[in-house]
Amino acid sequence: MVTFYKTEQTYQSGSKTLAGDYYTSPDIFAAETERIFSRRWFCAGHASRIPRAGDYFSLEAFGESILLVRGEQAKVHAWYNVCRHRGTRLCEQSEGRFGKSIQCPYHAWTYALDGRLIGAPLMKDADGFDKADFPLPPVSMRLWEGFIFLNLSESPRPFEADFAPLLGKFADWNLPLLEPAGRAVYDVAANWKFIFENYNECYHCPPAHPQLAKISPSNSGGNDLVEGPVLGGFMLIEGADSLTLSGNACALPVGDLKPEDHRRVYYYSIFPNMLLSLHPDYVMFHTVTPVSPERSRITCEWLFHPQAFGRPGFNPQDGMDFWDMTNKQDWRVCELSQKGVRSRVYRPSPYSPRETLPAAFDRYYLGVLGA
Amino acid sequence: MVTFYKTEQTYQSGSKTLAGDYYTSPDIFAAETERIFSRRWFCAGHASRIPRAGDYFSLEAFGESILLVRGEQAKVHAWYNVCRHRGTRLCEQSEGRFGKSIQCPYHAWTYALDGRLIGAPLMKDADGFDKADFPLPPVSMRLWEGFIFLNLSESPRPFEADFAPLLGKFADWNLPLLEPAGRAVYDVAANWKFIFENYNECYHCPPAHPQLAKISPSNSGGNDLVEGPVLGGFMLIEGADSLTLSGNACALPVGDLKPEDHRRVYYYSIFPNMLLSLHPDYVMFHTVTPVSPERSRITCEWLFHPQAFGRPGFNPQDGMDFWDMTNKQDWRVCELSQKGVRSRVYRPSPYSPRETLPAAFDRYYLGVLGA
Amino acid sequence: MVTFYKTEQTYQSGSKTLAGDYYTSPDIFAAETERIFSRRWFCAGHASRIPRAGDYFSLEAFGESILLVRGEQAKVHAWYNVCRHRGTRLCEQSEGRFGKSIQCPYHAWTYALDGRLIGAPLMKDADGFDKADFPLPPVSMRLWEGFIFLNLSESPRPFEADFAPLLGKFADWNLPLLEPAGRAVYDVAANWKFIFENYNECYHCPPAHPQLAKISPSNSGGNDLVEGPVLGGFMLIEGADSLTLSGNACALPVGDLKPEDHRRVYYYSIFPNMLLSLHPDYVMFHTVTPVSPERSRITCEWLFHPQAFGRPGFNPQDGMDFWDMTNKQDWRVCELSQKGVRSRVYRPSPYSPRETLPAAFDRYYLGVLGA
Repeated sequence: MVTFYKTEQTYQSGSKTLAGDYYTSPDIFAAETERIFSRRWFCAGHASRIPRAGDYFSLEAFGESILLVRGEQAKVHAWYNVCRHRGTRLCEQSEGRFGKSIQCPYHAWTYALDGRLIGAPLMKDADGFDKADFPLPPVSMRLWEGFIFLNLSESPRPFEADFAPLLGKFADWNLPLLEPAGRAVYDVAANWKFIFENYNECYHCPPAHPQLAKISPSNSGGNDLVEGPVLGGFMLIEGADSLTLSGNACALPVGDLKPEDHRRVYYYSIFPNMLLSLHPDYVMFHTVTPVSPERSRITCEWLFHPQAFGRPGFNPQDGMDFWDMTNKQDWRVCELSQKGVRSRVYRPSPYSPRETLPAAFDRYYLGVLGA
Repeated sequence: MVTFYKTEQTYQSGSKTLAGDYYTSPDIFAAETERIFSRRWFCAGHASRIPRAGDYFSLEAFGESILLVRGEQAKVHAWYNVCRHRGTRLCEQSEGRFGKSIQCPYHAWTYALDGRLIGAPLMKDADGFDKADFPLPPVSMRLWEGFIFLNLSESPRPFEADFAPLLGKFADWNLPLLEPAGRAVYDVAANWKFIFENYNECYHCPPAHPQLAKISPSNSGGNDLVEGPVLGGFMLIEGADSLTLSGNACALPVGDLKPEDHRRVYYYSIFPNMLLSLHPDYVMFHTVTPVSPERSRITCEWLFHPQAFGRPGFNPQDGMDFWDMTNKQDWRVCELSQKGVRSRVYRPSPYSPRETLPAAFDRYYLGVLGA
Repeated sequence: MVTFYKTEQTYQSGSKTLAGDYYTSPDIFAAETERIFSRRWFCAGHASRIPRAGDYFSLEAFGESILLVRGEQAKVHAWYNVCRHRGTRLCEQSEGRFGKSIQCPYHAWTYALDGRLIGAPLMKDADGFDKADFPLPPVSMRLWEGFIFLNLSESPRPFEADFAPLLGKFADWNLPLLEPAGRAVYDVAANWKFIFENYNECYHCPPAHPQLAKISPSNSGGNDLVEGPVLGGFMLIEGADSLTLSGNACALPVGDLKPEDHRRVYYYSIFPNMLLSLHPDYVMFHTVTPVSPERSRITCEWLFHPQAFGRPGFNPQDGMDFWDMTNKQDWRVCELSQKGVRSRVYRPSPYSPRETLPAAFDRYYLGVLGA
């Protein structure tokens, strides 16, 4: 049985915001890149984005370009976007569909959809050259509930080490089957941790999100994951059927939900780059990619029940527009915080009793960074 | 009695321009930020810019955003633009008018116009939290002749230590009463010291300012402050009534001036960021804000007698356009100098006998930097 | 007698591409600037660009602005674009024509077309000042076959040390007499060495240059300079008269060529910044200026026989457009390589037997860098 706590119930007296350097220092950013983003599993997207053999998208993250490709037998592959000859970037587009192979535009080295080097002009005359030694460089990959997770480490930690709290948790929402209806990309002038701290509290909802606060009271709901890599819980929907501009549900329910889950939105932040928001009629997820200490690239994608598409009443824009508005309200206050913490007078200050999850996020983050 | 010297009379044989590093080195820029701009009083503007309770403007300088606010009882306040909760920038606009209070857009912490924290939702439940401990962070401030001076040090040096030569000096010009008619902001690709050195000599006037040189001979006048933080003197107006495009006076005299002061413009550079130029019919002042070793932001504002506004013959644009033209001529040669001193062959070279004030500026600057 | 080798004949087993740091590291770039570009002779252009007394162009390279000026008696001068007074950049334009002298826009110091300081207002009153001590700062210069070569070192190495292989080599092509018909400037997001490696192999021609590969077989020709500062040889023209969009010759032959040279294009890379491509009817040369580890500025200029201009059949655009297309194909693959070598998985990989010259370039480069 899951226990939910009001956020105030897990309040730790004396919790304070992080010092300014954590949001601005290039040295701390370098440490984060090494200790967090080069070691942890991070979300690259949902496999439904590449349904057919040859479909691909590329991901720019942590100094790398990574190709996510649907190969034969529906298998998903993740490779560094780097030719084994001169290192040339193989593919410039952010998404598309390959034919039967992937060819480098420079010297025409050619790879099969399973990564094998199958063409390398004239290299048969190079002493000791064996094509089998030069496949596309793979990235460690795991699928969880349809989401693609990657790990840049040469010896990745077990996926289950961090994701244990989530395994099986969302079975009712049909996550592996859902299909995308839209995608937004935001360039935000704020440190990635501001995004996580912001997502994890609704203390800011009344001033920053008047529309959201009206249909989802900021003091409603409760949290069940209150320490560790995954943090979150639910909030209630009141006076509306879902979080949409109209207040109406915008699609079929995503799954065979329990009665109470038709009035709830579940929000979980998954360290270090994913925000997962489960609504009755759609699932939204963000990925947060640090670009520099003061800049982040954020994607937001919306998934729906596959049978919702084309049905009467299917109006995904109603939910996506609601969150595009709400996202931009969040990015603005995060950007204002980024500007302020550079000041010589900024000091760590008390978190309110409604900011227990940001405080828990900071604790977990500091533990990982110190490791 | 004030003694004025021709610039050549204070010529020091062997004076040379500064080495190139002083205009380009990030290390020297960091030392300047610490030893000069974080310690010295600098001009933020004129209080007449915010006449009514609630009026404010913000200032971006030396890594800070500072709010200048007219509070109750006509009092001028200076605060860091930083919320005491999460450090959020409180105000994004560069100028405007607050109502009765200042509210943070993130979590609605609210401050009175005297800086007291008067609202902090839910914080009454935070252990030991007392609103009295979290006022807006103040910046040290002094008013001099209507000008707002700020100091970022935690224990500022006495204002009088640097401003003694100026106290009472400009009583005839009615500086505290004057009112603004215009403001220009320039982004200049030159080190801030080039701006000061340029302002302090008219050796460049014949080639660079043909219009100015025609109505204010470059060898006229004399200097009375020739060493120290304030440098300058006067030049004559000839064949015109003032420095305007038309040559006519563009407003009432700013004060009850001595007869000779109707034919003079007084120019003083006030270390480290102000240039004050007193004409018979208007007062112009520049503030120079270093942005990086090779970039400065310069404001130029023009003040007039309060009774000049609306009178027949009031034509402030005539004076402002003259100086906008002249300013841009100066910024161009400063930018060309900036480009040149990066060269491996640039070496300190002899100042001319008409560049005694730039040489004095350099000496004072080096003394402060070495301190 | 010149011996030409097929590129495969000089293949060294085990040759690999450079490590990624050589293309991205600011430290290596700084070492290159000091050990290569501040010591080696580099090409600034062709003297035919400034035919008349007073003609000039300026060159931005390696942190300097350099003025190339045609003086009296047809003499070519090279000076740093730096006034001897305040270091001011003398000339902002990239090309033009001076009158009888060069005047600084700041304080009107004036230089003759041979570099002597001939005017310095008021400096006669500066103690010990002698105009003879303040000429324009010269840059070491040599003319070779009409090309202007510069050296930024205070004690330049002998020009012949590096250029011995070229002296007299191209007499048939009339290089000193040729005249320009066009000039292109490219800003390329790739390290300068990618440009050289690319120029030195035609392994990439079939995939990257379908038009070129069609009229100049990628396995044709041979190389005669296969180690050292100058690398190259020739390739055949087949099924066309020259490398033009139409396939027709676009001008008179540039010289009294040997019969076989009417069917050949000679390609030589000249360390560290010049690519020289001799066609029967025109000569093309590139200069490559490193701007940062990941950015280069490239000029491409086309020279023709002076008697070709105005003749029937003179169609220089036909050749220039062919190479503008081909240049852009090259810059694209160089930029893709630049992007790829930043990856943590990029490793030096085997060069093909058709990439012996890039391998020789790398060896020579490493030798110079290590010196």
